[in-house]
Amino acid sequence: MSSKNNNSSSKSKNPLSILMASQNSQILLRLKDGTEYRGLLKEIDAYMNLILYDATELLEGTPVAKYNEIFIRGNNLLFIKPDASQIM
Amino acid sequence: MSSKNNNSSSKSKNPLSILMASQNSQILLRLKDGTEYRGLLKEIDAYMNLILYDATELLEGTPVAKYNEIFIRGNNLLFIKPDASQIM
Amino acid sequence: MSSKNNNSSSKSKNPLSILMASQNSQILLRLKDGTEYRGLLKEIDAYMNLILYDATELLEGTPVAKYNEIFIRGNNLLFIKPDASQIM
Amino acid sequence: MSSKNNNSSSKSKNPLSILMASQNSQILLRLKDGTEYRGLLKEIDAYMNLILYDATELLEGTPVAKYNEIFIRGNNLLFIKPDASQIM
Amino acid sequence: MSSKNNNSSSKSKNPLSILMASQNSQILLRLKDGTEYRGLLKEIDAYMNLILYDATELLEGTPVAKYNEIFIRGNNLLFIKPDASQIM
Amino acid sequence: MSSKNNNSSSKSKNPLSILMASQNSQILLRLKDGTEYRGLLKEIDAYMNLILYDATELLEGTPVAKYNEIFIRGNNLLFIKPDASQIM
Amino acid sequence: MSSKNNNSSSKSKNPLSILMASQNSQILLRLKDGTEYRGLLKEIDAYMNLILYDATELLEGTPVAKYNEIFIRGNNLLFIKPDASQIM
Repeated sequence: MSSKNNNSSSKSKNPLSILMASQNSQILLRLKDGTEYRGLLKEIDAYMNLILYDATELLEGTPVAKYNEIFIRGNNLLFIKPDASQIM
Repeated sequence: MSSKNNNSSSKSKNPLSILMASQNSQILLRLKDGTEYRGLLKEIDAYMNLILYDATELLEGTPVAKYNEIFIRGNNLLFIKPDASQIM
Repeated sequence: MSSKNNNSSSKSKNPLSILMASQNSQILLRLKDGTEYRGLLKEIDAYMNLILYDATELLEGTPVAKYNEIFIRGNNLLFIKPDASQIM
Repeated sequence: MSSKNNNSSSKSKNPLSILMASQNSQILLRLKDGTEYRGLLKEIDAYMNLILYDATELLEGTPVAKYNEIFIRGNNLLFIKPDASQIM
Repeated sequence: MSSKNNNSSSKSKNPLSILMASQNSQILLRLKDGTEYRGLLKEIDAYMNLILYDATELLEGTPVAKYNEIFIRGNNLLFIKPDASQIM
Repeated sequence: MSSKNNNSSSKSKNPLSILMASQNSQILLRLKDGTEYRGLLKEIDAYMNLILYDATELLEGTPVAKYNEIFIRGNNLLFIKPDASQIM
Repeated sequence: MSSKNNNSSSKSKNPLSILMASQNSQILLRLKDGTEYRGLLKEIDAYMNLILYDATELLEGTPVAKYNEIFIRGNNLLFIKPDASQIM
């Protein structure tokens, strides 16, 4: 678990702006109830409300449903893995 | 699960405005307690309070009740599938 | 489940104003804990605090109590069925 | 369950002002955890914080404790039955 | 349960100011998780954060711990019995 | 449980300022989930976010982990015992 | 558990600024649901939203997943151990 080489000059970026920069890329997210969604992050706002395209709903890692487009309310969010392309 | 071709110039739209644009179309929504509602999105505001017409209440996918008109309080919302016409 | 014919010019109404317009008519509401109340909506404010007259409390559809007047705190609300006259 | 005859000109009253008008009368209230209190509403503010005099605590309708004076935090409130004199 | 004789001219007092007036007297309070504390109310603010002196922690009425001084976060509060001197 | 002799002129102090004055002394705190932490209160802000040094995590009174430094989010807090030196 | 020698002149630092100073170092954090994450704190904002690099997800101390980058919503946070380098 070696840490990446980070240039410490990048402190001006904040966590949300990094999420904003993940628009149009594949993400994985987990809600507070444990449900996970994998899909293309189409839109996200400052409240972490977001739109996923081609989303797969996962329960304990198993796909249980698919949605071509889904809006998820930000306040239910636990975490977002910004770049999920390599684990799909 | 190939991602749609998105023109990256559309970043000005936010998630809520996409929901607003879904008024008068069929949606599917899930509440935090797992209950789902399918119906015509008649009105929605910035708090995600919304009015559904011809709504069907679903428990684990099974219809359990029908409402010709129903107001749902936004803070209970987990997700909204904006265009539910093809899965009905 | 055919959708009603809506004139799309009515987009200025918001969900809460539709609730406000339901004052003095029969409604059905469900709280987050599953309890339901059926009665005459006498008053409602922007926080969805409301007063019901001649209210019946329902547990899984069965009447368990009656109140000639009851104040319900809006933040407990799950949904409101604005016109409950035809299901009573 | 016939509705009372309401003069529709009284729309200016809001739910909270009706509660305020119940000061110095007997009320019944239920908290989110199901506990109920019956007593004289001595004071109530806009957050629904309130003071009851001669309060009886009820669990599933059975008296379990008495308090000559009790302050109840408004955010725990589920409902208030404004006039509980006829059910005591 | 006869109600006390209240002069209706005292409507200017609000519930919190009555709590404030209980400083330096014995109170009993219950938290949302059911735990109760009995002690001298030393300080209380508008968020109902408070300091108790010589506090006894009670589980279902049984003393389980003592604290010479304890700060309790107001948002956990269910109720406060302002004058607990006669039940100690 | 005799109450301390308090000069009633000290009403200007509020609960949080008493906590602030406990910086650099030993405290005991309990979170909403029942976990307790004992340690040196190094920093605390108005939201009750705080830093403990040399902290011991306790489950039902039994030490389960130690942290040389730990940041605790204030909104999880149930209570703080400001001076825990005599019970350690 | 001897307390560190703290110069009491450092009272101007607040808990969050100490977290901010932990950017680019290894941390351990626990969420309200008990899940823990260990990794490099890349970004953190005033709401305690944060980005971890090379994160390991732990359930009761056992690694269950790894994420090269993960965004965690601050409101789920229970605690952060700022310097986790010596326990890894």
